[in-house]
Amino acid sequence: MNRNGIVSVFALGGLHEVGKNMYAIECGEDIVVIDCGNKFPDESLLGIDLIIPDIFYLIENKDRVRALIVTHGHEDHIGGIPYFLKKINVPVYATRFTLGLIEIKLKEHRFLRESELHEIHSESEIQIGDMSISFFKVNHSIPDCLGIVFSTPEGNIVHTGDFKFDLTPANNERSDLHRMAEIGNRGVLLLLSESTNAERKGFTPSEQMVGDNLESIFMKCKQKVIVSTFASNVSRIQQVIHASKKTRRKLALLGRSMVNVVGVAMERGYLDVPKGMLIDARDIHDLPPEMVTILCTGSQGEAMAALSRLSTGNFRGVDIYPEDTVILAAGPIPGNEKNVSTIVDNLYKLGAHVIYGSGSSSGMHVSGHGYQEDLKLMITLMKPKYFVPIHGEYRMLYHHQLLAESVGVEPGNTFILKNGDVVDIQNSVARSTRTVPVGSTYVDGIDVGNMEFVLRDRKQIAEDGMLMIILPMSRENAKMLAEPEIISRGFVDNNFSELRKRMIRIIQETVDELHAADRYSWNVKKKQVKRLISQYIKERTKKEPMIVPILIEI
Amino acid sequence: MNRNGIVSVFALGGLHEVGKNMYAIECGEDIVVIDCGNKFPDESLLGIDLIIPDIFYLIENKDRVRALIVTHGHEDHIGGIPYFLKKINVPVYATRFTLGLIEIKLKEHRFLRESELHEIHSESEIQIGDMSISFFKVNHSIPDCLGIVFSTPEGNIVHTGDFKFDLTPANNERSDLHRMAEIGNRGVLLLLSESTNAERKGFTPSEQMVGDNLESIFMKCKQKVIVSTFASNVSRIQQVIHASKKTRRKLALLGRSMVNVVGVAMERGYLDVPKGMLIDARDIHDLPPEMVTILCTGSQGEAMAALSRLSTGNFRGVDIYPEDTVILAAGPIPGNEKNVSTIVDNLYKLGAHVIYGSGSSSGMHVSGHGYQEDLKLMITLMKPKYFVPIHGEYRMLYHHQLLAESVGVEPGNTFILKNGDVVDIQNSVARSTRTVPVGSTYVDGIDVGNMEFVLRDRKQIAEDGMLMIILPMSRENAKMLAEPEIISRGFVDNNFSELRKRMIRIIQETVDELHAADRYSWNVKKKQVKRLISQYIKERTKKEPMIVPILIEI
Repeated sequence: MNRNGIVSVFALGGLHEVGKNMYAIECGEDIVVIDCGNKFPDESLLGIDLIIPDIFYLIENKDRVRALIVTHGHEDHIGGIPYFLKKINVPVYATRFTLGLIEIKLKEHRFLRESELHEIHSESEIQIGDMSISFFKVNHSIPDCLGIVFSTPEGNIVHTGDFKFDLTPANNERSDLHRMAEIGNRGVLLLLSESTNAERKGFTPSEQMVGDNLESIFMKCKQKVIVSTFASNVSRIQQVIHASKKTRRKLALLGRSMVNVVGVAMERGYLDVPKGMLIDARDIHDLPPEMVTILCTGSQGEAMAALSRLSTGNFRGVDIYPEDTVILAAGPIPGNEKNVSTIVDNLYKLGAHVIYGSGSSSGMHVSGHGYQEDLKLMITLMKPKYFVPIHGEYRMLYHHQLLAESVGVEPGNTFILKNGDVVDIQNSVARSTRTVPVGSTYVDGIDVGNMEFVLRDRKQIAEDGMLMIILPMSRENAKMLAEPEIISRGFVDNNFSELRKRMIRIIQETVDELHAADRYSWNVKKKQVKRLISQYIKERTKKEPMIVPILIEI
Repeated sequence: MNRNGIVSVFALGGLHEVGKNMYAIECGEDIVVIDCGNKFPDESLLGIDLIIPDIFYLIENKDRVRALIVTHGHEDHIGGIPYFLKKINVPVYATRFTLGLIEIKLKEHRFLRESELHEIHSESEIQIGDMSISFFKVNHSIPDCLGIVFSTPEGNIVHTGDFKFDLTPANNERSDLHRMAEIGNRGVLLLLSESTNAERKGFTPSEQMVGDNLESIFMKCKQKVIVSTFASNVSRIQQVIHASKKTRRKLALLGRSMVNVVGVAMERGYLDVPKGMLIDARDIHDLPPEMVTILCTGSQGEAMAALSRLSTGNFRGVDIYPEDTVILAAGPIPGNEKNVSTIVDNLYKLGAHVIYGSGSSSGMHVSGHGYQEDLKLMITLMKPKYFVPIHGEYRMLYHHQLLAESVGVEPGNTFILKNGDVVDIQNSVARSTRTVPVGSTYVDGIDVGNMEFVLRDRKQIAEDGMLMIILPMSRENAKMLAEPEIISRGFVDNNFSELRKRMIRIIQETVDELHAADRYSWNVKKKQVKRLISQYIKERTKKEPMIVPILIEI
């Protein structure tokens, strides 16, 4: 394809899903990648640890990939970076805080020294081929977030990153309205804007609300206060620190990612912790309980995280006592509701006061993603000719499209894309007619790949178990030399011994019949045994265990 | 135990959980059982179809079990009945509508003819031993619900069943306030009251709200309307019928349980369907779309139910077209949110208008369970001396206890029980000091039991797969006769052939060493091979597949 004068935009992750965000801009021969996130598997993906974007297209065009630019440090934007860089080791551009989190990740993968990391800020400019790339500050639930402006020969393309407009944020990091207005005035050809909360009416509440509520709860508590939130929500953590200071409490951190992220945030100046406030978790017993705050991971009900272990009395050295107060300062992400409920239940059983709720209903959480009015404000400021809603399930993209039209984007100028769908821009006209190949890549332990077969096997065995049928065959004449052996795992039958007898008869008859019919092939026998046993088991037990016939030649 | 003059109350299901409700009252030597429900497994119970109460205690005391009384026809109150009756075939007492649903269930289990079913109503009285049992009407999200009064020599024990106070219900079935007031005036020793919504403030909204909203949506729709709700919510279905009538639509039913339950409801007079309104789903194409309503199952996102199949274009003969309207007239039960979202997404992709939301936020659903003010009203009417909150997770029981105390139940007179905890009442004093044995019973296909081992196996294989190691051993000297064979299922490794070579070497060395040390036992060899291979695989791949060594003697 002659790419002369063509600018293309597509996603390799993040569309029709929440998570594993990855977008790419191609300008002539140059490809710039935006974000490289992961997402967590649902229960149907048995044994899978992570899902990351499928970068087949980028690997095929490796020589043209010039840079990875990262909008912010959430897992769904950085979680795939080590896997990506190991395949395509291009320079990475991100802000100071985001780089701190990326470095932790690369260290864990032992790939930090091999990586080329560049610190940028909202005033930076990068020139790549015909593109000049600049940035603007946005507010979100993690420090140091950027939106990106790609100035191309065809016009300006804007990627918002994740954002909301919080006019009273806890960290003084406002979305830069003035800069956005300027960008809009200079002209935006195409806006890519995030859609996570496109179904929610109104403006996102301000982080200030949480601060006020935390403070009044802290005032009332007569014992320990335990707050669980996302480690990356430094603003929220800052407010816990404020409330602790006001009520003369010391602060202990529990959970690896809490310690890691607070470390990065303090070291790089994103968190203001009064001297002497931080204490080691082992030292909380030296203080009266009304002088202790604990900040911990696990607000999503993760089984191995600090809050879950606290709730079952399994955190070494730290116990929750009656009249302690536990605040879940984070709403459950869809899919985590049940695990969170179990933890709340266990905390009540320990006698704790528990403050929890979905969304912002408890007053202890506000979303970091803009609601409908925030989204309309962004589109209004940018005044784009073309609009591509990004980050979200189809229904979110759909509602975002309606919002765009309501503030003046021409019907027909919005593209609801799937991962891999390409928007090509030439002579300032955008069209979406082609795709690049894309799927999902699974991570299972240290292995990375497609794993379709393996998952199919796991599912069948998980559902109904497995029967191994060992067929001892004669090396000379393909007759059975002894009774077949049947071994089961994960298979239930209340009357297995009778079932076994019957199976052995079926196997023997099958082998004898085939033999009598001069069909000596072991493979034919194996297949036939598998078919007839599956059929018999299904009729008799209504189950479909995996049947594995194993031929042993003797 | 000499049970003279002792009245005991306990649960075999329904406490610290939502679902599989089953309670028992023992008065002297007589045991009466209340409800026998099921619940659905979460994803951790691989391959399990249903969970039912563990009735070990009742089987041990089979001769003393006199009756099963059923409060209403929801699955979590009747789903375990066929399994129960097959073990303990006592008379079943339930109202006309509830019996209709129980009969369907017993027919499916081919146990209807063997069962002894008795129809009761709110004026019925049953005498069992020293107990006389009477009833009172309650309103809930299914017709014909009862609360129960057990008059025992010790005093009156009241079981509320599931209820709310809806003063403008769609079916004219109000909770009988006057009867409850009378019961309260006669004196209640112990109240067992349901706790499902004990965390929610205010009164439950009335079903009337849904009716009004349905009607105004129907008025606006220019194409087909598809409504999905619980088949058992006959009031909701009645309102869909009203709205269809007003907008001159015919009604088609999709989904087996919808057809079954509407059948029972019409036949027994609980549903008023205008003549000629019901049409066969195959005939909807004969009508203009603005004359069609479809009522279907699957509001909880169940993969095989009608709505899910409609949303993916896989329902034979019925399609959803752009501008059709789909109403989810049921909130997602916790745990089902994700599946419901996927369906909503797919419906949007088909171009449908979708009306959905959690709880009553869409205006298309109200809960059938009383909120805090409903619960306080029940306790106020009954004025019990002792109080046992039932039906719910611990946090719900806990909040219900606070509500009871807020309306005058003495602190210390509430028992928050677990399944199996017994409250003994003697000389009008209640104590909880002992337990009866209880667990969970799993149903997998046609098998019923504990299945702990099987589940453990399934989990291990589902997580990391399985390696079968076939060891061909000599019959004479326990030496290995050939190279071991390794078969894997559900196990991933990007470099399996190298791994296999290494495993074979480990196995051969292990067997040789043991042999050299005069340890000929096959079992020792098998165990050692399993241990060393597990260890090697874990080190090398960070995974823990199930290792199954299989000895073949030749």
